[in-house]
Amino acid sequence: MFLGRVIGEVWATRKVSDLEGHRLLVVEALDTGSGPPAPMVTPVVAADPLGAGVGEEVIVAFGKAARVACGGDGDFALEAAVVGIVDGHQLNAGESA
Amino acid sequence: MFLGRVIGEVWATRKVSDLEGHRLLVVEALDTGSGPPAPMVTPVVAADPLGAGVGEEVIVAFGKAARVACGGDGDFALEAAVVGIVDGHQLNAGESA
Amino acid sequence: MFLGRVIGEVWATRKVSDLEGHRLLVVEALDTGSGPPAPMVTPVVAADPLGAGVGEEVIVAFGKAARVACGGDGDFALEAAVVGIVDGHQLNAGESA
Amino acid sequence: MFLGRVIGEVWATRKVSDLEGHRLLVVEALDTGSGPPAPMVTPVVAADPLGAGVGEEVIVAFGKAARVACGGDGDFALEAAVVGIVDGHQLNAGESA
Amino acid sequence: MFLGRVIGEVWATRKVSDLEGHRLLVVEALDTGSGPPAPMVTPVVAADPLGAGVGEEVIVAFGKAARVACGGDGDFALEAAVVGIVDGHQLNAGESA
Repeated sequence: MFLGRVIGEVWATRKVSDLEGHRLLVVEALDTGSGPPAPMVTPVVAADPLGAGVGEEVIVAFGKAARVACGGDGDFALEAAVVGIVDGHQLNAGESA
Repeated sequence: MFLGRVIGEVWATRKVSDLEGHRLLVVEALDTGSGPPAPMVTPVVAADPLGAGVGEEVIVAFGKAARVACGGDGDFALEAAVVGIVDGHQLNAGESA
Repeated sequence: MFLGRVIGEVWATRKVSDLEGHRLLVVEALDTGSGPPAPMVTPVVAADPLGAGVGEEVIVAFGKAARVACGGDGDFALEAAVVGIVDGHQLNAGESA
Repeated sequence: MFLGRVIGEVWATRKVSDLEGHRLLVVEALDTGSGPPAPMVTPVVAADPLGAGVGEEVIVAFGKAARVACGGDGDFALEAAVVGIVDGHQLNAGESA
Repeated sequence: MFLGRVIGEVWATRKVSDLEGHRLLVVEALDTGSGPPAPMVTPVVAADPLGAGVGEEVIVAFGKAARVACGGDGDFALEAAVVGIVDGHQLNAGESA
């Protein structure tokens, strides 16, 4: 799982039927490490069963965890989902948000 | 899942039988992040059950999600597939496409 | 699995029900390689069934391994967990901790 | 799945029994992206059920897909395999091979 | 799977019970590519059912493959394992070891 920020939304009319009815968010990883900045990584597209808004901090899970989060039985054409909307975090460098 | 652009197609006569009849696209990740450019990553080869064209923006899923998208029961020698063809996206920096 | 250090904790009130009752740690990878420093990678969010403290060195596992570690049966919306709290390591460059 | 080139072969006498009889190739990712060069990534070791030669372009799959490609039932100590030997590819920058 | 070198060992008294009795090695990826050096990646912690020594070249597998290699039935809190100890490799640049 990773800590990310919702930076937008994506729409697809032509899609596999399992994705019908799922909001698809674009989430970028937050670099909360203690060292020099990590290189940016390209954002992830995650289904959102929780109703996160753009700008919110979220926890994203992959694979079966994402399918379970979306109510699937595991046989589901989806492999990333928001599993939590973050209230706050406390990092050892003293940063809190 | 990630947001990518179809940059081409690949053909293989000698392949495992599960890949017969599947169009195989070469997809590169779109860097839609809000920060400095992410380092490029090498493209992915994805099966395409939806008929995406070169230049189109797509959502790619991995693992079991890809096998389900291609109609498999999970026991399938394939682990990346196009699961959506993107109509548009809205990113918080105001970019929309 | 990877060797990491716990750098903080994250809280989410709105989350999928499978995450209820799990402490969620932010863990960054330790660069124990013998060569030049590896680029930093963005930290991982891991469930913690062992009670690791901030600053402790831990082993993190992904996927089904993480679900098993947290007592799940595999159908669990969680894909990273602390599976060990490190007492020490011995690396061939002679570093030990 | 990714597009790679076979750069060599590796031998192991001491190995888990599931690997007996499998040729193990070293495959490096081809950087076919349209932008600036991607950073090199360290090569992958893949089982080869198809008989690819050194220098040939191949498609490599991971996880269950690889086990299925090698004739396993999924309970198999192997997680990368050549699933196709490439005849050619057409990329939108006009490059073809 | 990847080709790595054992650079050390890690000990954990507090760990999930599935890890009891498993030697845990720290393995770093070997950069055997033909191009410019790949950026270093942070090392992996892998269970070792084969008895590899520090300094030896090994093949590491992830996920279910690792659990099978360690004798598990798949429901096992472990996701990386040494599956082969390398006798030698031949790479197309003529390097052999």
